[in-house]
Amino acid sequence: MKVLVTGAGGFIGAHVLALLHRQRHVGGRRIAALAAVDQRLGALPAGVVALQGDLGSDEVLSRIAAFAPDCCLHLAAVPGGAAEADPALSRRVNLDATLDLFDTLATAGTGGPAPVVVYASTIAVYGSHLPQTVTPHTPLRPPLVYGAHKLACEVLLADFSRRGRLDGRALRLPGIVARPRAPSGLVSAFMSELLHALAAGEPITLPVGPEATAWWMSARRCAWNLVHGATMPVGDDPARAWPLPVLRLSMDEVVQALSAEFGVDGRALVGHAPRSDVEAVFGRYPPLDDRIPRALGLRDDGDARALVRRALAPADAPGDDDNL
Amino acid sequence: MKVLVTGAGGFIGAHVLALLHRQRHVGGRRIAALAAVDQRLGALPAGVVALQGDLGSDEVLSRIAAFAPDCCLHLAAVPGGAAEADPALSRRVNLDATLDLFDTLATAGTGGPAPVVVYASTIAVYGSHLPQTVTPHTPLRPPLVYGAHKLACEVLLADFSRRGRLDGRALRLPGIVARPRAPSGLVSAFMSELLHALAAGEPITLPVGPEATAWWMSARRCAWNLVHGATMPVGDDPARAWPLPVLRLSMDEVVQALSAEFGVDGRALVGHAPRSDVEAVFGRYPPLDDRIPRALGLRDDGDARALVRRALAPADAPGDDDNL
Repeated sequence: MKVLVTGAGGFIGAHVLALLHRQRHVGGRRIAALAAVDQRLGALPAGVVALQGDLGSDEVLSRIAAFAPDCCLHLAAVPGGAAEADPALSRRVNLDATLDLFDTLATAGTGGPAPVVVYASTIAVYGSHLPQTVTPHTPLRPPLVYGAHKLACEVLLADFSRRGRLDGRALRLPGIVARPRAPSGLVSAFMSELLHALAAGEPITLPVGPEATAWWMSARRCAWNLVHGATMPVGDDPARAWPLPVLRLSMDEVVQALSAEFGVDGRALVGHAPRSDVEAVFGRYPPLDDRIPRALGLRDDGDARALVRRALAPADAPGDDDNL
Repeated sequence: MKVLVTGAGGFIGAHVLALLHRQRHVGGRRIAALAAVDQRLGALPAGVVALQGDLGSDEVLSRIAAFAPDCCLHLAAVPGGAAEADPALSRRVNLDATLDLFDTLATAGTGGPAPVVVYASTIAVYGSHLPQTVTPHTPLRPPLVYGAHKLACEVLLADFSRRGRLDGRALRLPGIVARPRAPSGLVSAFMSELLHALAAGEPITLPVGPEATAWWMSARRCAWNLVHGATMPVGDDPARAWPLPVLRLSMDEVVQALSAEFGVDGRALVGHAPRSDVEAVFGRYPPLDDRIPRALGLRDDGDARALVRRALAPADAPGDDDNL
């Protein structure tokens, strides 16, 4: 099969590309060709086709059509904080270019089964006033333009699937760690910064309190889930969208896991300067009823120690993901 | 206030324009200027500003920006059957042009309160496998591209409202009768055709059985609701979307009301050739929990006799809507 990864130059995209290149198959089907799209592509694994440029440009879309993927993992996006600062840019990338990509993939199909699209959606579709437990019936009230555009694309991908034009699978990503220590445009960047700081034995001040509770996943486990999503049997759920199973951990629980893993006194290194706006969006995630995505074979990181260990391993670290 | 009606040359748009022109106010606020947008505008009431052209064109958007509406009732759309036959056209009109309009209205604001947008959404956002009662928690699973694009716009209008750029109010329209006896691109056209046929004493064959149950509203009552929607106090519901209260009636109940109203033997005139695809979408609407929209002052037609009487009255019939 021919596989395309968008946003392949990004944090999660690099993990997905490395995993696909290492595995050389998707759900038992051999990868005949692997292509990567992004505005900037660094050094790629050997044999990967580079499609450098703007996803929404006619040139890149033509090259995608010529490549005619059987499977696309669509990760390219303007992240939450940057989208909120520039909603017009978010519309162009997170909505318009995404729909252009869906149209291109549907049209480029070579008469076989509808191309698979694994769409990196977000838990930001849920909203900031969540019930005691988030279930498949929780109303979706995105509190940021990023989540609104992602939710719109979920709805439209489900419609492509209903029409038999694409085989869509939207996975709602939680806070993914540990992003590189650089400005990312994500309001949730502090979650990754916490891991890097304590691994390096450095002090850090968090914009949330120690009891602030979030949904966590390592980038490696996230990449594994996205690839698994391409071939998992999805049944007849018309919405075609699932949250990833998550570890629900307080900041303090993560600090303790980091302290044990790296032999540091985390509680001494971590300060708190809670901001109510950040706590409202990233600090009050209730339990998630994730029985349906678990039954589909999607997985969390296991426990807090495994989370921080896997989160800080490089994308191209060899070996079985579970043993990291 | 300055009021803009899109789709003003269409069936419901004409009723809205006639009502606004007759009332000369919206929720007690005097209408200083009234503008109408559509590809084709017929004869307009005196004083209405005509903005003829494609809604998504730069020219029409510039003219809308220059008009700088305080309130827009957005009805322009490619209807359900036509959208399903041409999803690319639906994307262009029902999604892209609608978002361009929202952007234009938000930007054209003159520094006062955010412009009000009453958005004509649709019960086609709900889906064809409905629970025993449709409630505010019923998951939204649009079974047609038309409903998917409308739902995406609901989500995006709610986000404009959250950001304080627009004051959005999406109202989900049920089957509106009686559309003119002409091809409309709507799968539900048979509902209107039933009214016209029996009013004229003509035979008709329906694509659903006598027990098929739908949600009904007259165009005049729909227009009243859309105008009411512009000023009703909406509270802090972040979704900003409500179904209109409806009469839930079987085909046979409507046939009986028409028989009594027009002195015909409806059951003798009406034949049935049920199509399972049409029944699935338009024949199995369960009860609707419409307590929230009723509390907002939105209204149904009262009863089946009032529905058919009001549905067959012309848009410009004078007098109190309730006494028709």
